[in-house]
Amino acid sequence: MPLMTGDEYVRSLQKIKMRIFLFGEEIDNPVGNPILQPAVNSVKATYDLAQNPEYADLMTATSNLTGEKINRFTHIHQSPDDLVKKVKMQRLLGQKTAACFQRCVGMDSFNSVYSTTYEVDKKYGTHYHDNFVKFATYVQQNDLTVDGAMTDTKGDRSLSPSKQADPDLFLHVVERRPDGIVVRGAKAHQTGILNSHEVIVMPTIAMGPDDKDYAVSFAVPLDTEGLMMIVGRQSCDTRKTEGCQLDLGNSTYGGMEALTVFDNVFVPNDRIFLNGETEFAGMLVERFAGYHRQSYGGCKVGVGDVLIGATALASEYNGVEKASHIKDKLIEMVHLNETLYCCGIACSAEGQPTESGNYLIDLMLANVCKQNVTRFPYEIARLAQDIAGGLMVTLPSEKDMAHPVVGPVIRKYLAGPAKVDVMDRFKIMRLIENLTLGTAAVGYLTESMHGAGSPQAQRIMISRQSNMSAKKAMAKHIAHIKD
Amino acid sequence: MPLMTGDEYVRSLQKIKMRIFLFGEEIDNPVGNPILQPAVNSVKATYDLAQNPEYADLMTATSNLTGEKINRFTHIHQSPDDLVKKVKMQRLLGQKTAACFQRCVGMDSFNSVYSTTYEVDKKYGTHYHDNFVKFATYVQQNDLTVDGAMTDTKGDRSLSPSKQADPDLFLHVVERRPDGIVVRGAKAHQTGILNSHEVIVMPTIAMGPDDKDYAVSFAVPLDTEGLMMIVGRQSCDTRKTEGCQLDLGNSTYGGMEALTVFDNVFVPNDRIFLNGETEFAGMLVERFAGYHRQSYGGCKVGVGDVLIGATALASEYNGVEKASHIKDKLIEMVHLNETLYCCGIACSAEGQPTESGNYLIDLMLANVCKQNVTRFPYEIARLAQDIAGGLMVTLPSEKDMAHPVVGPVIRKYLAGPAKVDVMDRFKIMRLIENLTLGTAAVGYLTESMHGAGSPQAQRIMISRQSNMSAKKAMAKHIAHIKD
Amino acid sequence: MPLMTGDEYVRSLQKIKMRIFLFGEEIDNPVGNPILQPAVNSVKATYDLAQNPEYADLMTATSNLTGEKINRFTHIHQSPDDLVKKVKMQRLLGQKTAACFQRCVGMDSFNSVYSTTYEVDKKYGTHYHDNFVKFATYVQQNDLTVDGAMTDTKGDRSLSPSKQADPDLFLHVVERRPDGIVVRGAKAHQTGILNSHEVIVMPTIAMGPDDKDYAVSFAVPLDTEGLMMIVGRQSCDTRKTEGCQLDLGNSTYGGMEALTVFDNVFVPNDRIFLNGETEFAGMLVERFAGYHRQSYGGCKVGVGDVLIGATALASEYNGVEKASHIKDKLIEMVHLNETLYCCGIACSAEGQPTESGNYLIDLMLANVCKQNVTRFPYEIARLAQDIAGGLMVTLPSEKDMAHPVVGPVIRKYLAGPAKVDVMDRFKIMRLIENLTLGTAAVGYLTESMHGAGSPQAQRIMISRQSNMSAKKAMAKHIAHIKD
Amino acid sequence: MPLMTGDEYVRSLQKIKMRIFLFGEEIDNPVGNPILQPAVNSVKATYDLAQNPEYADLMTATSNLTGEKINRFTHIHQSPDDLVKKVKMQRLLGQKTAACFQRCVGMDSFNSVYSTTYEVDKKYGTHYHDNFVKFATYVQQNDLTVDGAMTDTKGDRSLSPSKQADPDLFLHVVERRPDGIVVRGAKAHQTGILNSHEVIVMPTIAMGPDDKDYAVSFAVPLDTEGLMMIVGRQSCDTRKTEGCQLDLGNSTYGGMEALTVFDNVFVPNDRIFLNGETEFAGMLVERFAGYHRQSYGGCKVGVGDVLIGATALASEYNGVEKASHIKDKLIEMVHLNETLYCCGIACSAEGQPTESGNYLIDLMLANVCKQNVTRFPYEIARLAQDIAGGLMVTLPSEKDMAHPVVGPVIRKYLAGPAKVDVMDRFKIMRLIENLTLGTAAVGYLTESMHGAGSPQAQRIMISRQSNMSAKKAMAKHIAHIKD
Repeated sequence: MPLMTGDEYVRSLQKIKMRIFLFGEEIDNPVGNPILQPAVNSVKATYDLAQNPEYADLMTATSNLTGEKINRFTHIHQSPDDLVKKVKMQRLLGQKTAACFQRCVGMDSFNSVYSTTYEVDKKYGTHYHDNFVKFATYVQQNDLTVDGAMTDTKGDRSLSPSKQADPDLFLHVVERRPDGIVVRGAKAHQTGILNSHEVIVMPTIAMGPDDKDYAVSFAVPLDTEGLMMIVGRQSCDTRKTEGCQLDLGNSTYGGMEALTVFDNVFVPNDRIFLNGETEFAGMLVERFAGYHRQSYGGCKVGVGDVLIGATALASEYNGVEKASHIKDKLIEMVHLNETLYCCGIACSAEGQPTESGNYLIDLMLANVCKQNVTRFPYEIARLAQDIAGGLMVTLPSEKDMAHPVVGPVIRKYLAGPAKVDVMDRFKIMRLIENLTLGTAAVGYLTESMHGAGSPQAQRIMISRQSNMSAKKAMAKHIAHIKD
Repeated sequence: MPLMTGDEYVRSLQKIKMRIFLFGEEIDNPVGNPILQPAVNSVKATYDLAQNPEYADLMTATSNLTGEKINRFTHIHQSPDDLVKKVKMQRLLGQKTAACFQRCVGMDSFNSVYSTTYEVDKKYGTHYHDNFVKFATYVQQNDLTVDGAMTDTKGDRSLSPSKQADPDLFLHVVERRPDGIVVRGAKAHQTGILNSHEVIVMPTIAMGPDDKDYAVSFAVPLDTEGLMMIVGRQSCDTRKTEGCQLDLGNSTYGGMEALTVFDNVFVPNDRIFLNGETEFAGMLVERFAGYHRQSYGGCKVGVGDVLIGATALASEYNGVEKASHIKDKLIEMVHLNETLYCCGIACSAEGQPTESGNYLIDLMLANVCKQNVTRFPYEIARLAQDIAGGLMVTLPSEKDMAHPVVGPVIRKYLAGPAKVDVMDRFKIMRLIENLTLGTAAVGYLTESMHGAGSPQAQRIMISRQSNMSAKKAMAKHIAHIKD
Repeated sequence: MPLMTGDEYVRSLQKIKMRIFLFGEEIDNPVGNPILQPAVNSVKATYDLAQNPEYADLMTATSNLTGEKINRFTHIHQSPDDLVKKVKMQRLLGQKTAACFQRCVGMDSFNSVYSTTYEVDKKYGTHYHDNFVKFATYVQQNDLTVDGAMTDTKGDRSLSPSKQADPDLFLHVVERRPDGIVVRGAKAHQTGILNSHEVIVMPTIAMGPDDKDYAVSFAVPLDTEGLMMIVGRQSCDTRKTEGCQLDLGNSTYGGMEALTVFDNVFVPNDRIFLNGETEFAGMLVERFAGYHRQSYGGCKVGVGDVLIGATALASEYNGVEKASHIKDKLIEMVHLNETLYCCGIACSAEGQPTESGNYLIDLMLANVCKQNVTRFPYEIARLAQDIAGGLMVTLPSEKDMAHPVVGPVIRKYLAGPAKVDVMDRFKIMRLIENLTLGTAAVGYLTESMHGAGSPQAQRIMISRQSNMSAKKAMAKHIAHIKD
Repeated sequence: MPLMTGDEYVRSLQKIKMRIFLFGEEIDNPVGNPILQPAVNSVKATYDLAQNPEYADLMTATSNLTGEKINRFTHIHQSPDDLVKKVKMQRLLGQKTAACFQRCVGMDSFNSVYSTTYEVDKKYGTHYHDNFVKFATYVQQNDLTVDGAMTDTKGDRSLSPSKQADPDLFLHVVERRPDGIVVRGAKAHQTGILNSHEVIVMPTIAMGPDDKDYAVSFAVPLDTEGLMMIVGRQSCDTRKTEGCQLDLGNSTYGGMEALTVFDNVFVPNDRIFLNGETEFAGMLVERFAGYHRQSYGGCKVGVGDVLIGATALASEYNGVEKASHIKDKLIEMVHLNETLYCCGIACSAEGQPTESGNYLIDLMLANVCKQNVTRFPYEIARLAQDIAGGLMVTLPSEKDMAHPVVGPVIRKYLAGPAKVDVMDRFKIMRLIENLTLGTAAVGYLTESMHGAGSPQAQRIMISRQSNMSAKKAMAKHIAHIKD
């Protein structure tokens, strides 16, 4: 089956009957909803760009499962080059959407479940890898969008899953039947789930023997009975309902997250990828997190490119583009952004094959990548606000600009240099607001902090991967210290 | 006349007939408007706290003009101790409102106009100082709130005021009459103007001989013919119209800015404080900026205190308050916040008298203060987001929480440690969102960047004040270099 | 008795018979030793400047004990103004010496012992305060330099003093006699001890009931039997023995530290200031550390002034002083340096009286001050190296410059702009080397890190002083959270 | 011919008659000189490691010129994988020597001259590429060490080479003869020149038509008539003459730099690689700088590994390795170090072929790499000093430790935890001193700042490579701004 066009994707999404709650109301599909449509558009872009021959090398790949040309978002990475191209594809999409395009979690789930199930089967003689390959083939052949669901809501963080007051605070198996399992629980912060055809569920932390019911991984379609999504609010979300465009900054693209509840959801046997093999929960988490920390070295860099471009325009529209401190701040923004890209590229280029044959990023460097992502976008955003100027937060509304009395007054007094269309100046101010304080700041800043694991999670991994004993041996050798 | 109570202030404000544009509609008073009321409340707090004996030492002072007890916001500083108390009052108000309380610009205008008019009169035999003393006495006796308006919209920044394509891009005198002057132009980013009884206008930059008509300073009441305010949008502003409280984070207090247009406004002679003496424009700007850069070492520190407190609560509500990295990040937040406070205190304690007798802050240290304010609140906000966790930007809406089906589901799954009321957890998430992405982020972040002058303005002043030749002489002495 | 001149100080020092070890050899006085003389010169400067009427306001004070004019280094602070002047005196001396002038520890010991003994006596009816006042009066009347010795060598840091394998790893009382006590132990990193007439010993940490013998404070003269100093090496120390001047960068001034051993030293009763009152050990440490953390907001700022001046000269001698990035880096250096000064001033201006009547700095702000000192000098030094250029570390030796063949070659090829004397260029390179890598880097960098307590010590104090419960209450109030 | 062993290298070096000045004395070979021997040892390590089969993959390569196995330091890179291995080899050598091993400049000259001469010949029909291939073949076959000399002394930086008061301030052709050219001038900061068999000279900046005589590149052996080296001083250099080991920190390895004078040096025609083709000077500089900026993403990371290991040991020897803040600082050091490595790897993995067929690094990412190198090692060094403690700069000398009286006293009082040999503690203190203040700080810090170009040089390149117009187009597209 050929790759879907963007329009086909939207139509395919419309056919799925979901259970969505938004601002206290129930709706059954994101398409056409003003709050949710921009997030649909971002995913749609992953389909549209894959149709564009210019981007074919980045956006598509040849499946190791089917030999067919597929969208790279559904690909099982076959080489370091595949890992590098993944990052470049993500940077491209960040540049095109200036938003979170949401389809990475599925790709990262794919590759971590693929290799982990292989090793589980090897140890236990289970058939999870076959299950997964069958599922992955189905996804590739139908060019589906898949959400990857990991983060449990966790309750009291000092307690393990099985020790929580409410056993549902981590998603778990509540019934084992001959034809499958029944699960209950919730996954928080589910990026893009409303725009997905399927969701892959994974455990959220390494687990001990008591947590057997919690070591579970599987996939179900979005219209599965018992599935419910409650959409999270974002800064400035309701501007999208005002009927305005300018005030949105980015009126086309956006992202979304939802609390996703699994209320006694049935999973058939052939959709199960882990079921009680607790010692593999940690491997799955570590690999997924590793891939996803790599991802941020691509997507956030692409969004950063747009913010840097917007800031350069702001300096021109403010008439200060030739000031040396402005130039220097733009260089600093580029420098920080490219440092993130270096990390994304490096952990990819240093990728190694797993036992299953697909390629895993270098875990140390991927964690270093994400750790920098928890810092630099905030500094880039700060510099953007510096150059944009205060107008970014004091500009009157689009409705004022359309008003017969004050509209002309605003345009008169907020004019920049003669060559600049004052409305373009306003558009850029709103785009920078969007990326540093508005809906997109959720993705560019807070998600940079917490997506793929909060900063401390990376520090723990960096410590674990640091091979400190080798470093100490080097120092002892130089200092002539004998053991 | 005794100090006004907060309620009296609100009633006095209601009596003023203003011309306000907001979202394309004209309104005539901020009181009662859901978008604007929180900003009124913040100013109201400056009246309420002055009634509280506990805070009398900080909130009130004895006027050098009348000998009466006055609100410190209308005071002419008589000593370094007055300068220090100003900063402490501002920290207190930041703590009480977690917002911009808007009344500082008036106080800072007061003190800079007071000393500058004295020096103008001395040189030119004008009567500006008398005019101002009369005006200040009126303000003190009636306990009024005064806006200080400096920032012109500037047009093409490479051109001086008199060289702009449109002569109105800097506010200027368009007519000189026997009884006064007529002015035209606009002042951007006017913080708190809607909540003021009077506005003091000042020039925005140092000026040359050609800019005579632009070197103008005066005061007019808010209901003056020809005055028009167009309110600026803020991130998340319309949440205030949703009828919710929780989603606001801070449902009581806020700030506001407006583009303020002076369309052929008449100013009577006794309200003129500068009129063509171009060489004093720079002094007025430098002093106002200096005082206002000091201010940020108080108010932003107070808001920082609330954000730090909220973050500490978030760590408890998330059940992670004992993790060493959490404790360390809170210490870092306190450290940065108190460093700002050090700068606010130091430039005050080192204050010196002007020729007019009032006290001016140490200009070097005040500029250093503000320069740090353009950096540290961003890092404090970043750390707050780190500790708060992703829930801050994915939490469902207050309406979902009130919904009979999903309300209980949200409370079940997003429960923290047993002892924590989950709704309190949500409230704190929203407060941190408010301060780092929402309406209050406009004040805590972007205004920290640009209020009282953008970062580069401080760097120029730091360079000017650095006495580099003395430093070079010290180095030469140590290195035995002879001139 | 009048204040000593610098020369009188040196002569007085020469008369003291000490036991000093340096590079494996025993010497009996620092005066005239090429390695140690620069450190003598720095202390001498504290006497010379006190003779200069220009600096009388900063360098001298009126004793509360004798009513006489004394050197401020021996003063008991009587007001916040005294605390502020202390910081200004320290900045002045940093500017004059570009080195550690060593006399601050005595001043800081004075003020902490003064107030603590008062409170011990009040509780226990002891006479430590009288002892100390008598000692202080003697010091003031004879204008002596006093070392303050706090840091024990600590052995295994996980164990308390009385639990160490070797009981001497913390200094302690080994014998109690009718006429006094005998003590044994060592104090590490004793800044300026060789240049002192007397040394005040204090405990190094808060202590428990088992540590009675370790809670001891006293003063003895430097020629006391059993006292021994082993001088610590510094980077580039032996350049001072090469007979060169240029290569030293700063050929006049320096600092020194020594491991100071008390080998059964007898202390007469009237020189004892604490003897077993364990619960006051912590107070003494906290106050001394507080005063000393304030000190760094003065002395390091002064040294920073010299480094900034040297760097500005380097930019001129390199012919790049007009480049915008050079100017901006110099501004950043000034900004960081003045931020430290703000902290020094603020903790002083906010000082409060102790029960004994002398003034104590604001502990929070003094700890914030020192915490910044552990960071900013490193960044200032980095920027200095940036502007200085690589020549700073590749410049041939002074002996090469004097060589008939290569001397002219060096001067020919390393010439800067025409107007610059190439030898001046070299002198400045060496001064920057001295301050960022050489003997003075020990004081400007590493001592900034660890002097007056390592960074973590300040973080603990910042945490303790942060009044987090008040901050949480503020946040709860804003967020409408009820307890 | 087989690769030389380390010993053979030293013997080959001994045979070269050089003209070296050091501390005002002339010597003719670095081997055996206590100041210079450690730098010889570092280069020797590049030979020794190439003999070790364990490192064969990194240390050796197959020549594209001869088909033989060669030392990678003489290799012309044939693929991105070669570029990556270069960086890994450099990290390895940094780990083994904790110093600058000096042989990189030759490798980076090789690859930049190789590709540039190819393009010059293509345009002008010259034979520089042949000349260079012949020279490179000779170097590979004899396994020689080659210095790359670029940095002229520059005089007045506001003037071009041909406009300097003294025409020799940039190296230039003074005579053109049938058999070759005669050159005069000097190259500053020549790393490792004394330990090289040959030196390749390159121009130092882009040049205009007037600078024809300055656009010159060639190679000569080190014993060429007219060549003279004046060794630069380093911090703590003369400790190496004290006959001590412990006080050196790193007693085996080191680096060196020399001012290298070309006093009418004759270059035969077949050793000329550029001679007047001014428009190629910039290409040669840009490529050499690019390769060398990549290099720092390897070598400094390796030295960083040793410093991190030493710091981890210091924490153990101080008995504080379990404190959470210590662990966190070590993680930060690793994080920063690995970020540098990411940059080194990324610019290599993204390498592209030149017209000549060898591979060039990605110029943007290589400049980003070096820019980070001008920052992070300073922060790593600061953290190392934090954890090491003040003892690092107050430790008595090795001679004191050997003294019968004070030696035992030092060991008694400066003992750490029971399990730690106190002498090991001292060795680690000295190693950290060496790397952060001593001879190795010249390489790890100042050279990180200025080697391969000062920070501003990278910022200019980052700006040039930033493709800002594409970024602006992205932002316009998102903001619906039409051109």
